[in-house]
Amino acid sequence: MKPFDLSVYLVTDTRLCGARGVAETVRLAVAGGATLVQLRDSAAPIREILALAETLVAMLRPLGVPLLVNDRVDVAMAAGADGVHLGQTDMPASAARRLMGEDAIIGLSVGNPAEFAAARDDLHAVDYLGTGPFRATATKDDAGAAIGPAGIATVTALCRLPVVAIGGIDATCAGEAIRAGADGVAAVSAICAAGDPEAATRAIADAVRTARAAVHPAPTPD
Amino acid sequence: MKPFDLSVYLVTDTRLCGARGVAETVRLAVAGGATLVQLRDSAAPIREILALAETLVAMLRPLGVPLLVNDRVDVAMAAGADGVHLGQTDMPASAARRLMGEDAIIGLSVGNPAEFAAARDDLHAVDYLGTGPFRATATKDDAGAAIGPAGIATVTALCRLPVVAIGGIDATCAGEAIRAGADGVAAVSAICAAGDPEAATRAIADAVRTARAAVHPAPTPD
Repeated sequence: MKPFDLSVYLVTDTRLCGARGVAETVRLAVAGGATLVQLRDSAAPIREILALAETLVAMLRPLGVPLLVNDRVDVAMAAGADGVHLGQTDMPASAARRLMGEDAIIGLSVGNPAEFAAARDDLHAVDYLGTGPFRATATKDDAGAAIGPAGIATVTALCRLPVVAIGGIDATCAGEAIRAGADGVAAVSAICAAGDPEAATRAIADAVRTARAAVHPAPTPD
Repeated sequence: MKPFDLSVYLVTDTRLCGARGVAETVRLAVAGGATLVQLRDSAAPIREILALAETLVAMLRPLGVPLLVNDRVDVAMAAGADGVHLGQTDMPASAARRLMGEDAIIGLSVGNPAEFAAARDDLHAVDYLGTGPFRATATKDDAGAAIGPAGIATVTALCRLPVVAIGGIDATCAGEAIRAGADGVAAVSAICAAGDPEAATRAIADAVRTARAAVHPAPTPD
Protein backbone atom coordinates (compact mmCIF):
# COMPACT_ATOMS: atom_id res chain seq x y z
CA MET A 1 0.00 0.00 0.00
CA LYS A 2 1.13 3.53 -0.73
CA PRO A 3 1.64 5.77 2.31
CA PHE A 4 -1.15 8.28 2.82
CA ASP A 5 -1.97 11.00 5.30
CA LEU A 6 -5.59 11.53 6.32
CA SER A 7 -4.88 14.76 8.24
CA VAL A 8 -6.64 17.23 5.94
CA TYR A 9 -8.77 15.30 3.47
CA LEU A 10 -10.61 17.27 0.78
CA VAL A 11 -13.77 15.77 -0.75
CA THR A 12 -14.71 17.70 -3.86
CA ASP A 13 -18.22 18.91 -4.61
CA THR A 14 -18.52 20.19 -8.16
CA ARG A 15 -21.56 22.35 -7.46
CA LEU A 16 -20.01 24.00 -4.40
CA CYS A 17 -16.76 24.66 -6.27
CA GLY A 18 -18.87 26.79 -8.62
CA ALA A 19 -17.23 28.99 -11.21
CA ARG A 20 -13.77 28.45 -9.68
CA GLY A 21 -13.97 24.85 -10.79
CA VAL A 22 -12.90 21.64 -9.10
CA ALA A 23 -9.32 21.59 -10.37
CA GLU A 24 -8.54 25.12 -9.20
CA THR A 25 -10.20 24.46 -5.84
CA VAL A 26 -8.05 21.36 -5.41
CA ARG A 27 -4.92 23.31 -6.34
CA LEU A 28 -5.67 25.97 -3.73
CA ALA A 29 -6.58 23.41 -1.06
CA VAL A 30 -3.32 21.55 -1.56
CA ALA A 31 -1.44 24.84 -1.36
CA GLY A 32 -3.20 25.34 1.97
CA GLY A 33 -2.20 21.94 3.29
CA ALA A 34 -4.68 19.32 2.05
CA THR A 35 -2.99 15.93 2.35
CA LEU A 36 -5.39 13.78 0.33
CA VAL A 37 -8.13 14.46 -2.23
CA GLN A 38 -11.26 12.50 -3.04
CA LEU A 39 -13.06 13.29 -6.29
CA ARG A 40 -16.78 12.95 -5.65
CA ASP A 41 -19.43 13.83 -8.21
CA SER A 42 -22.52 11.70 -8.54
CA ALA A 43 -24.14 13.89 -11.21
CA ALA A 44 -21.66 14.54 -14.02
CA PRO A 45 -21.31 12.15 -16.97
CA ILE A 46 -18.61 9.56 -16.36
CA ARG A 47 -16.61 10.80 -19.32
CA GLU A 48 -16.32 14.23 -17.64
CA ILE A 49 -15.44 12.72 -14.28
CA LEU A 50 -12.73 10.60 -15.90
CA ALA A 51 -11.26 13.65 -17.65
CA LEU A 52 -11.27 15.57 -14.37
CA ALA A 53 -9.65 12.65 -12.56
CA GLU A 54 -6.89 12.61 -15.18
CA THR A 55 -6.35 16.35 -14.70
CA LEU A 56 -6.14 15.93 -10.93
CA VAL A 57 -3.73 12.99 -11.15
CA ALA A 58 -1.42 15.07 -13.34
CA MET A 59 -1.59 17.92 -10.82
CA LEU A 60 -1.31 15.91 -7.60
CA ARG A 61 1.17 13.17 -8.42
CA PRO A 62 4.19 15.52 -8.55
CA LEU A 63 3.08 16.95 -5.20
CA GLY A 64 2.83 13.53 -3.56
CA VAL A 65 -0.84 14.03 -2.72
CA PRO A 66 -2.95 10.92 -3.43
CA LEU A 67 -6.18 11.15 -5.43
CA LEU A 68 -9.06 8.81 -4.63
CA VAL A 69 -12.25 8.50 -6.68
CA ASN A 70 -15.61 8.06 -5.01
CA ASP A 71 -17.40 4.80 -5.86
CA ARG A 72 -16.04 4.26 -9.40
CA VAL A 73 -13.23 1.73 -9.35
CA ASP A 74 -13.12 1.79 -13.15
CA VAL A 75 -12.65 5.55 -13.30
CA ALA A 76 -9.92 5.38 -10.67
CA MET A 77 -8.10 2.67 -12.61
CA ALA A 78 -8.50 4.37 -16.00
CA ALA A 79 -7.22 7.68 -14.63
CA GLY A 80 -4.32 6.13 -12.75
CA ALA A 81 -5.66 7.47 -9.46
CA ASP A 82 -4.33 6.15 -6.19
CA GLY A 83 -7.49 4.52 -4.93
CA VAL A 84 -11.19 4.67 -4.24
CA HIS A 85 -13.54 5.58 -1.46
CA LEU A 86 -16.50 3.20 -1.14
CA GLY A 87 -19.84 3.51 0.61
CA GLN A 88 -21.80 0.72 2.23
CA THR A 89 -23.81 0.03 -0.94
CA ASP A 90 -20.92 0.44 -3.39
CA MET A 91 -18.83 -2.45 -4.61
CA PRO A 92 -17.46 -4.47 -1.67
CA ALA A 93 -13.92 -3.45 -0.78
CA SER A 94 -12.66 -6.99 -1.35
CA ALA A 95 -13.88 -6.86 -4.97
CA ALA A 96 -12.27 -3.45 -5.44
CA ARG A 97 -9.01 -4.78 -3.98
CA ARG A 98 -8.99 -7.70 -6.43
CA LEU A 99 -9.40 -5.28 -9.34
CA MET A 100 -7.01 -2.57 -8.13
CA GLY A 101 -4.22 -4.56 -6.54
CA GLU A 102 -2.31 -4.25 -3.30
CA ASP A 103 -0.99 -0.73 -3.93
CA ALA A 104 -4.38 0.96 -4.13
CA ILE A 105 -5.71 3.02 -1.23
CA ILE A 106 -9.22 1.83 -0.39
CA GLY A 107 -11.44 3.68 2.04
CA LEU A 108 -14.82 2.63 3.35
CA SER A 109 -17.61 4.67 4.96
CA VAL A 110 -18.47 3.21 8.36
CA GLY A 111 -20.64 5.43 10.53
CA ASN A 112 -21.53 3.16 13.43
CA PRO A 113 -21.07 -0.34 14.86
CA ALA A 114 -23.86 -1.80 12.71
CA GLU A 115 -22.12 -0.64 9.53
CA PHE A 116 -18.85 -1.90 10.92
CA ALA A 117 -20.38 -5.31 11.51
CA ALA A 118 -21.86 -5.35 8.00
CA ALA A 119 -18.42 -4.66 6.53
CA ARG A 120 -16.49 -7.08 8.73
CA ASP A 121 -15.73 -9.60 5.95
CA ASP A 122 -14.29 -6.83 3.80
CA LEU A 123 -12.15 -5.01 6.33
CA HIS A 124 -9.06 -6.97 5.35
CA ALA A 125 -9.24 -5.06 2.05
CA VAL A 126 -9.74 -1.62 3.62
CA ASP A 127 -7.01 0.93 4.37
CA TYR A 128 -9.01 3.51 6.29
CA LEU A 129 -12.52 4.26 7.48
CA GLY A 130 -14.52 7.39 6.74
CA THR A 131 -16.75 8.05 9.72
CA GLY A 132 -19.61 10.48 10.11
CA PRO A 133 -21.51 12.61 9.78
CA PHE A 134 -19.60 14.38 12.54
CA ARG A 135 -22.04 17.28 12.48
CA ALA A 136 -25.28 17.82 10.59
CA THR A 137 -24.54 18.54 6.94
CA ALA A 138 -26.53 19.62 3.93
CA THR A 139 -23.88 18.44 1.45
CA LYS A 140 -24.92 14.80 1.34
CA ASP A 141 -28.62 14.12 1.61
CA ASP A 142 -28.25 10.45 2.64
CA ALA A 143 -25.74 11.09 5.40
CA GLY A 144 -27.93 10.36 8.43
CA ALA A 145 -27.88 11.92 11.88
CA ALA A 146 -24.79 13.56 13.35
CA ILE A 147 -22.64 11.21 15.45
CA GLY A 148 -20.38 13.79 17.09
CA PRO A 149 -17.18 13.05 19.04
CA ALA A 150 -18.78 10.09 20.82
CA GLY A 151 -19.56 8.48 17.46
CA ILE A 152 -15.98 8.93 16.31
CA ALA A 153 -14.68 7.43 19.53
CA THR A 154 -17.04 4.47 19.13
CA VAL A 155 -15.74 3.63 15.66
CA THR A 156 -12.06 4.20 16.41
CA ALA A 157 -12.42 1.74 19.29
CA LEU A 158 -13.68 -1.01 16.96
CA CYS A 159 -10.44 -1.66 15.09
CA ARG A 160 -6.98 -0.33 14.39
CA LEU A 161 -7.73 1.12 10.93
CA PRO A 162 -7.12 4.85 10.65
CA VAL A 163 -10.30 6.94 10.76
CA VAL A 164 -11.10 10.18 8.98
CA ALA A 165 -14.04 12.12 10.38
CA ILE A 166 -16.43 13.62 7.82
CA GLY A 167 -19.62 15.64 7.78
CA GLY A 168 -20.03 19.31 8.54
CA ILE A 169 -16.38 19.70 9.47
CA ASP A 170 -14.66 23.09 9.41
CA ALA A 171 -11.85 24.71 11.35
CA THR A 172 -14.08 25.35 14.38
CA CYS A 173 -14.71 21.64 15.04
CA ALA A 174 -11.81 19.84 13.37
CA GLY A 175 -9.87 19.75 16.63
CA GLU A 176 -12.80 18.19 18.44
CA ALA A 177 -12.79 15.30 15.91
CA ILE A 178 -9.05 14.79 16.37
CA ARG A 179 -9.36 14.81 20.16
CA ALA A 180 -12.11 12.20 19.83
CA GLY A 181 -9.61 9.89 18.16
CA ALA A 182 -9.82 10.64 14.43
CA ASP A 183 -6.58 10.49 12.46
CA GLY A 184 -7.76 13.26 10.19
CA VAL A 185 -10.73 15.31 9.08
CA ALA A 186 -12.49 15.43 5.73
CA ALA A 187 -13.97 18.71 4.59
CA VAL A 188 -16.35 19.37 1.72
CA SER A 189 -18.23 22.66 1.90
CA ALA A 190 -15.76 24.30 4.34
CA ILE A 191 -13.20 24.23 1.52
CA CYS A 192 -15.22 23.98 -1.73
CA ALA A 193 -17.62 26.78 -0.83
CA ALA A 194 -14.99 29.00 0.80
CA GLY A 195 -14.17 32.38 -0.66
CA ASP A 196 -10.51 31.51 -0.13
CA PRO A 197 -10.09 27.71 -0.24
CA GLU A 198 -6.38 27.95 0.52
CA ALA A 199 -6.93 29.92 3.71
CA ALA A 200 -9.87 27.71 4.69
CA THR A 201 -7.72 24.60 4.29
CA ARG A 202 -4.86 26.18 6.24
CA ALA A 203 -7.23 26.96 9.10
CA ILE A 204 -8.36 23.33 9.22
CA ALA A 205 -4.77 22.11 9.05
CA ASP A 206 -3.82 24.41 11.93
CA ALA A 207 -6.75 23.16 14.00
CA VAL A 208 -5.68 19.55 13.37
CA ARG A 209 -2.09 20.32 14.34
CA THR A 210 -3.10 22.14 17.50
CA ALA A 211 -5.43 19.34 18.59
CA ARG A 212 -2.75 16.72 17.99
CA ALA A 213 -0.28 18.67 20.09
CA ALA A 214 -2.81 18.62 22.91
CA VAL A 215 -3.42 14.86 22.53
CA HIS A 216 0.28 14.00 22.16
CA PRO A 217 2.22 16.84 23.82
CA ALA A 218 5.88 17.17 22.90
CA PRO A 219 8.19 15.67 25.53
CA THR A 220 9.57 18.24 27.93
CA PRO A 221 13.08 18.10 29.41
CA ASP A 222 13.37 16.87 33.03
CA MET B 1 -12.34 -11.32 -28.72
CA LYS B 2 -14.95 -13.85 -27.73
CA PRO B 3 -17.49 -14.74 -30.42
CA PHE B 4 -20.89 -13.18 -29.89
CA ASP B 5 -24.23 -13.16 -31.65
CA LEU B 6 -26.26 -9.94 -31.70
CA SER B 7 -29.35 -11.58 -33.22
CA VAL B 8 -31.67 -11.35 -30.22
CA TYR B 9 -30.16 -9.06 -27.64
CA LEU B 10 -31.96 -8.60 -24.33
CA VAL B 11 -31.41 -5.38 -22.36
CA THR B 12 -32.78 -5.78 -18.86
CA ASP B 13 -34.98 -3.23 -17.14
CA THR B 14 -35.41 -4.02 -13.46
CA ARG B 15 -38.64 -2.06 -13.08
CA LEU B 16 -40.25 -3.64 -16.13
CA CYS B 17 -39.23 -7.13 -15.00
CA GLY B 18 -41.36 -6.46 -11.92
CA ALA B 19 -42.16 -9.23 -9.48
CA ARG B 20 -40.76 -11.89 -11.81
CA GLY B 21 -37.33 -10.40 -11.27
CA VAL B 22 -34.44 -9.81 -13.63
CA ALA B 23 -32.78 -13.22 -13.27
CA GLU B 24 -35.97 -15.17 -14.02
CA THR B 25 -36.76 -12.89 -16.96
CA VAL B 26 -33.28 -13.50 -18.35
CA ARG B 27 -33.69 -17.26 -17.90
CA LEU B 28 -36.96 -17.26 -19.83
CA ALA B 29 -35.60 -14.99 -22.57
CA VAL B 30 -32.62 -17.25 -23.13
CA ALA B 31 -34.93 -20.26 -23.26
CA GLY B 32 -36.83 -18.35 -25.95
CA GLY B 33 -33.69 -17.69 -27.99
CA ALA B 34 -31.95 -14.58 -26.62
CA THR B 35 -28.35 -14.68 -27.83
CA LEU B 36 -26.82 -11.97 -25.66
CA VAL B 37 -27.83 -10.16 -22.46
CA GLN B 38 -27.02 -6.66 -21.25
CA LEU B 39 -27.63 -5.87 -17.58
CA ARG B 40 -28.83 -2.28 -17.39
CA ASP B 41 -30.00 -0.62 -14.17
CA SER B 42 -29.13 2.97 -13.45
CA ALA B 43 -31.08 3.12 -10.19
CA ALA B 44 -30.10 0.19 -7.97
CA PRO B 45 -27.13 0.40 -5.58
CA ILE B 46 -23.95 -0.91 -7.21
CA ARG B 47 -23.65 -3.67 -4.64
CA GLU B 48 -27.03 -5.06 -5.78
CA ILE B 49 -26.12 -4.72 -9.45
CA LEU B 50 -22.86 -6.57 -8.85
CA ALA B 51 -24.65 -9.38 -7.05
CA LEU B 52 -27.16 -9.63 -9.90
CA ALA B 53 -24.35 -9.65 -12.46
CA GLU B 54 -22.70 -12.52 -10.60
CA THR B 55 -25.98 -14.45 -10.61
CA LEU B 56 -26.40 -13.88 -14.34
CA VAL B 57 -22.82 -14.90 -15.15
CA ALA B 58 -23.35 -18.17 -13.26
CA MET B 59 -26.56 -18.78 -15.21
CA LEU B 60 -25.41 -17.72 -18.66
CA ARG B 61 -21.83 -18.98 -18.88
CA PRO B 62 -22.82 -22.67 -19.10
CA LEU B 63 -25.29 -21.73 -21.84
CA GLY B 64 -22.68 -19.86 -23.88
CA VAL B 65 -24.67 -16.61 -23.75
CA PRO B 66 -22.48 -13.58 -23.05
CA LEU B 67 -23.39 -11.06 -20.35
CA LEU B 68 -22.52 -7.40 -20.80
CA VAL B 69 -22.93 -4.72 -18.14
CA ASN B 70 -24.14 -1.25 -19.03
CA ASP B 71 -21.67 1.54 -18.29
CA ARG B 72 -19.84 0.00 -15.30
CA VAL B 73 -16.55 -1.50 -16.39
CA ASP B 74 -15.69 -2.21 -12.77
CA VAL B 75 -18.87 -4.18 -12.15
CA ALA B 76 -18.34 -6.18 -15.34
CA MET B 77 -14.77 -7.01 -14.31
CA ALA B 78 -15.66 -7.86 -10.70
CA ALA B 79 -18.51 -10.15 -11.80
CA GLY B 80 -16.49 -11.84 -14.52
CA ALA B 81 -18.95 -10.67 -17.16
CA ASP B 82 -18.02 -10.84 -20.83
CA GLY B 83 -18.01 -7.13 -21.54
CA VAL B 84 -19.67 -3.75 -21.32
CA HIS B 85 -21.99 -1.56 -23.30
CA LEU B 86 -21.00 2.11 -23.29
CA GLY B 87 -22.90 5.26 -24.15
CA GLN B 88 -21.49 8.42 -25.66
CA THR B 89 -20.87 10.01 -22.26
CA ASP B 90 -19.61 6.88 -20.53
CA MET B 91 -15.94 5.98 -20.29
CA PRO B 92 -14.30 6.01 -23.74
CA ALA B 93 -14.13 2.54 -25.27
CA SER B 94 -10.35 2.75 -25.55
CA ALA B 95 -10.07 3.24 -21.78
CA ALA B 96 -12.44 0.34 -21.17
CA ARG B 97 -10.38 -1.84 -23.54
CA ARG B 98 -7.20 -1.05 -21.64
CA LEU B 99 -8.84 -2.11 -18.39
CA MET B 100 -10.70 -5.18 -19.68
CA GLY B 101 -8.26 -6.63 -22.16
CA GLU B 102 -8.60 -8.00 -25.66
CA ASP B 103 -11.13 -10.70 -24.84
CA ALA B 104 -13.85 -8.36 -23.59
CA ILE B 105 -16.86 -7.56 -25.75
CA ILE B 106 -17.26 -3.77 -25.91
CA GLY B 107 -20.32 -2.16 -27.46
CA LEU B 108 -20.91 1.53 -28.08
CA SER B 109 -24.14 3.46 -28.66
CA VAL B 110 -23.93 5.36 -31.94
CA GLY B 111 -27.22 6.72 -33.20
CA ASN B 112 -26.18 8.91 -36.10
CA PRO B 113 -23.20 10.14 -38.13
CA ALA B 114 -22.39 12.90 -35.64
CA GLU B 115 -22.07 10.39 -32.80
CA PHE B 116 -20.07 8.14 -35.11
CA ALA B 117 -17.68 11.01 -35.85
CA ALA B 118 -17.36 11.83 -32.13
CA ALA B 119 -16.39 8.22 -31.43
CA ARG B 120 -14.02 7.78 -34.36
CA ASP B 121 -10.82 7.70 -32.27
CA ASP B 122 -12.30 4.95 -30.10
CA LEU B 123 -13.76 2.67 -32.75
CA HIS B 124 -10.63 0.52 -32.81
CA ALA B 125 -11.63 -0.58 -29.32
CA VAL B 126 -15.29 -1.30 -30.17
CA ASP B 127 -16.76 -4.67 -31.14
CA TYR B 128 -20.27 -3.62 -32.11
CA LEU B 129 -22.51 -0.58 -32.33
CA GLY B 130 -25.89 -0.16 -30.67
CA THR B 131 -28.00 2.06 -32.90
CA GLY B 132 -31.31 3.71 -32.26
CA PRO B 133 -33.84 4.49 -31.16
CA PHE B 134 -35.40 2.49 -33.95
CA ARG B 135 -38.89 3.50 -32.87
CA ALA B 136 -40.11 5.90 -30.23
CA THR B 137 -39.64 4.39 -26.79
CA ALA B 138 -40.67 5.25 -23.27
CA THR B 139 -38.04 2.97 -21.69
CA LYS B 140 -35.13 5.38 -21.91
CA ASP B 141 -35.94 9.03 -21.41
CA ASP B 142 -32.75 10.33 -23.04
CA ALA B 143 -33.04 8.23 -26.17
CA GLY B 144 -33.89 10.99 -28.68
CA ALA B 145 -36.07 10.85 -31.77
CA ALA B 146 -36.75 7.63 -33.67
CA ILE B 147 -34.33 6.95 -36.54
CA GLY B 148 -36.20 4.12 -38.25
CA PRO B 149 -34.83 1.83 -40.98
CA ALA B 150 -33.16 4.76 -42.77
CA GLY B 151 -31.20 5.60 -39.61
CA ILE B 152 -30.04 1.99 -39.26
CA ALA B 153 -28.95 1.94 -42.91
CA THR B 154 -27.06 5.21 -42.42
CA VAL B 155 -25.02 3.84 -39.52
CA THR B 156 -24.37 0.40 -41.03
CA ALA B 157 -22.94 2.17 -44.09
CA LEU B 158 -20.39 4.07 -41.96
CA CYS B 159 -18.19 1.12 -41.04
CA ARG B 160 -17.98 -2.66 -40.96
CA LEU B 161 -18.73 -3.08 -37.26
CA PRO B 162 -21.82 -5.19 -36.55
CA VAL B 163 -24.87 -3.17 -35.58
CA VAL B 164 -27.68 -4.02 -33.18
CA ALA B 165 -30.82 -1.94 -33.54
CA ILE B 166 -32.45 -0.79 -30.30
CA GLY B 167 -35.44 1.25 -29.18
CA GLY B 168 -39.06 0.27 -29.27
CA ILE B 169 -38.30 -3.06 -30.95
CA ASP B 170 -40.71 -5.96 -30.77
CA ALA B 171 -41.60 -8.88 -33.05
CA THR B 172 -43.68 -6.66 -35.33
CA CYS B 173 -40.74 -4.47 -36.39
CA ALA B 174 -37.67 -6.63 -35.74
CA GLY B 175 -37.65 -7.84 -39.35
CA GLU B 176 -37.71 -4.28 -40.63
CA ALA B 177 -34.52 -3.51 -38.65
CA ILE B 178 -32.79 -6.60 -40.05
CA ARG B 179 -33.81 -5.76 -43.61
CA ALA B 180 -32.39 -2.25 -43.05
CA GLY B 181 -29.01 -3.82 -42.36
CA ALA B 182 -28.89 -4.51 -38.63
CA ASP B 183 -27.12 -7.68 -37.53
CA GLY B 184 -29.50 -8.09 -34.64
CA VAL B 185 -32.18 -6.42 -32.57
CA ALA B 186 -32.15 -5.38 -28.93
CA ALA B 187 -35.37 -5.56 -26.98
CA VAL B 188 -36.17 -4.12 -23.57
CA SER B 189 -39.87 -3.74 -22.80
CA ALA B 190 -41.01 -6.24 -25.46
CA ILE B 191 -39.35 -8.95 -23.36
CA CYS B 192 -39.09 -7.55 -19.82
CA ALA B 193 -42.72 -6.37 -19.67
CA ALA B 194 -44.16 -9.39 -21.52
CA GLY B 195 -46.56 -11.72 -19.78
CA ASP B 196 -44.55 -14.58 -21.28
CA PRO B 197 -40.96 -13.43 -21.87
CA GLU B 198 -39.98 -16.77 -23.41
CA ALA B 199 -42.71 -16.58 -26.06
CA ALA B 200 -42.02 -12.88 -26.65
CA THR B 201 -38.35 -13.62 -27.24
CA ARG B 202 -39.16 -16.54 -29.52
CA ALA B 203 -41.42 -14.29 -31.63
CA ILE B 204 -38.59 -11.78 -32.03
CA ALA B 205 -36.11 -14.56 -32.89
CA ASP B 206 -38.54 -15.89 -35.50
CA ALA B 207 -38.94 -12.43 -37.02
CA VAL B 208 -35.16 -12.02 -37.23
CA ARG B 209 -34.78 -15.44 -38.87
CA THR B 210 -37.54 -14.78 -41.39
CA ALA B 211 -36.11 -11.37 -42.31
CA ARG B 212 -32.63 -12.83 -42.77
CA ALA B 213 -33.98 -15.53 -45.06
CA ALA B 214 -35.52 -12.79 -47.21
CA VAL B 215 -32.28 -10.76 -47.27
CA HIS B 216 -30.05 -13.79 -47.90
CA PRO B 217 -32.26 -16.46 -49.53
CA ALA B 218 -30.98 -19.99 -49.36
CA PRO B 219 -29.35 -21.09 -52.60
CA THR B 220 -31.70 -23.06 -54.80
CA PRO B 221 -30.59 -25.96 -56.99
CA ASP B 222 -30.21 -25.20 -60.72
